[in-house]
Amino acid sequence: MNEISNKVINRLTLYHCILKYTMKESEFISSFEIADLLNLDNSLVRKDIALCGVLGHKKQGYSVTELKGAIEEKLGFSERKEIFIIGAGSLGSALVKYVDFKDYGIDILALFDNDPQKIEQDVNGKKILPLSKLENSISRISVKNIILAVPAEHAQEVTDYAVHCGVRFIWNFTPAVLRVPKSVTVYYENIISSFMQMRNA
Amino acid sequence: MNEISNKVINRLTLYHCILKYTMKESEFISSFEIADLLNLDNSLVRKDIALCGVLGHKKQGYSVTELKGAIEEKLGFSERKEIFIIGAGSLGSALVKYVDFKDYGIDILALFDNDPQKIEQDVNGKKILPLSKLENSISRISVKNIILAVPAEHAQEVTDYAVHCGVRFIWNFTPAVLRVPKSVTVYYENIISSFMQMRNA
Repeated sequence: MNEISNKVINRLTLYHCILKYTMKESEFISSFEIADLLNLDNSLVRKDIALCGVLGHKKQGYSVTELKGAIEEKLGFSERKEIFIIGAGSLGSALVKYVDFKDYGIDILALFDNDPQKIEQDVNGKKILPLSKLENSISRISVKNIILAVPAEHAQEVTDYAVHCGVRFIWNFTPAVLRVPKSVTVYYENIISSFMQMRNA
Repeated sequence: MNEISNKVINRLTLYHCILKYTMKESEFISSFEIADLLNLDNSLVRKDIALCGVLGHKKQGYSVTELKGAIEEKLGFSERKEIFIIGAGSLGSALVKYVDFKDYGIDILALFDNDPQKIEQDVNGKKILPLSKLENSISRISVKNIILAVPAEHAQEVTDYAVHCGVRFIWNFTPAVLRVPKSVTVYYENIISSFMQMRNA
């Protein structure tokens, strides 16, 4: 899906949310309904949908099932990415509970934490393992992706350890900027930036 | 700060994270250090910093304190926005705990929930109030902004109630798209979109 911009990706995921949650009881949806729900221009919505190769039915609009499937295919929801969550506090737990990541190709295998009281508990069916087992888990099943959800003050230290264990990709939910070798990619989930953009809109 | 783009806002908030967490022990920082930490072009970092009106000191670079203050001023961290969180589950609690929102002008006054077991407890010093008190709280202190952090399946119903109570601005952390009157603004915190953009990068 290299040809589509981040703005289009953002809109398509929101259309998908509409089809998955808001309109899940309906058989058809029109571009006007989507445009209205998201406060967008109807022609923009039609253009985005055309990118997914879906044609509307006269008078009825688009089939909810067909459009949902086409967006999933366009965005590659079926390409699985296996990932560990480091940090089983409220943020790590919230991430496991609030979004059905698996539907989007994100397969959370386990959480890791160094609080002995949390070990062996599970959150929404995912086991919490001791952080000391990370290296072993990585070498055993070759998952090199983590979601970092520890308190900011421990972010660097945990990152250093994760990188030592073989982690190569970090989706960082902490507000800390991380020092990593060039072989490691960090993607910042920047909530404060969202807020500032929102206030500036 | 109307003249700066979302991309610049995003980078400036990351520079601020560096100054606040990663380099908080240092007196000076160079644009090269920032560029290196974020994998950016040095000239871009210098341009962003120039926008904030900060000049570097020969050989030493920028004063950490001065640059941090200048970014805060440029982005308007001191403009306060009072907000309620609706939903005191793991996501609502994580939001209260993980980011020091107050430093960015976001003043979380209280959480609301309809689980009787949570009422009157507090999360990080913020009281959890019954959702039925929302209308009263809004009319008493005139806060019309909420962070929505309830499970997706309750998102619309809680939104309808919040709008009825007088809410005019919703920062939506649920994956549901919300039906609201034109007088209400919804801003979507779209984690799935981040993931798809990340995979596409």
